[in-house]
Amino acid sequence: MRLKLIASLLFLTTCFAASGQGQQQSPVVEKGLTKVSVMYPYAEGKTFNMEYYENKHMPMVAKFLGSNLVKYTIEKGVASGIPGQPLPFMAIGTFYVKSLTDYQAAIAPNRDAIRADFSNYTNISPVILVSEVVK
Amino acid sequence: MRLKLIASLLFLTTCFAASGQGQQQSPVVEKGLTKVSVMYPYAEGKTFNMEYYENKHMPMVAKFLGSNLVKYTIEKGVASGIPGQPLPFMAIGTFYVKSLTDYQAAIAPNRDAIRADFSNYTNISPVILVSEVVK
Repeated sequence: MRLKLIASLLFLTTCFAASGQGQQQSPVVEKGLTKVSVMYPYAEGKTFNMEYYENKHMPMVAKFLGSNLVKYTIEKGVASGIPGQPLPFMAIGTFYVKSLTDYQAAIAPNRDAIRADFSNYTNISPVILVSEVVK
Repeated sequence: MRLKLIASLLFLTTCFAASGQGQQQSPVVEKGLTKVSVMYPYAEGKTFNMEYYENKHMPMVAKFLGSNLVKYTIEKGVASGIPGQPLPFMAIGTFYVKSLTDYQAAIAPNRDAIRADFSNYTNISPVILVSEVVK
């Protein structure tokens, strides 16, 4: 009986530990990481093929980054949050990496392949922001 | 004995379910949400107090949003990712919400309080992007 109680308690502890770890995963992973955000400004006559970007371009770049890449996200610009102002960006793709140096080293030899792929989904010259996740 | 076995199995199932939910929380939560990104463009003479922004301004706005707010993030601009180009943004604060309509309804009665707080941490007029999380 005492053995069963101990076993149950151990199991309970393991269970809560596993569950707790999972629930806290998002903030633990992101804070302190470097974000490289590739931002596509909106303007008259500009086009962006989200399907190609999501299914071809971003997975290609992600593969170049290897284990330095923690995750990547894609967002589609919908509107400006300030009435009367134009949409700031049509799309933003963001790489969350552990090391900026490793990111640059991984991108450098593949820069031509990445740039050559641009015309397959957009005619926009992106703006790139390197930032640090504060929270 | 059979009862104990059933109880253990039930507990095991609950435990795995809880743990699984936790581990998948990040992707499940973000996709399909609306992001409201408040972006502070960099320019000569512009200032931004990250400490005030993180500890006072963002928590104040987050409180206005209530349960519609899934999470919020803060990032600090470090550099442009394109050599020779200026830093695009000094900081970005992002609210991940379930409903844009609810966001607007919550912000409207508090707009003056939010704007009045701007001068406590920055002299930048922000750009606001409303976007949809694709991935």
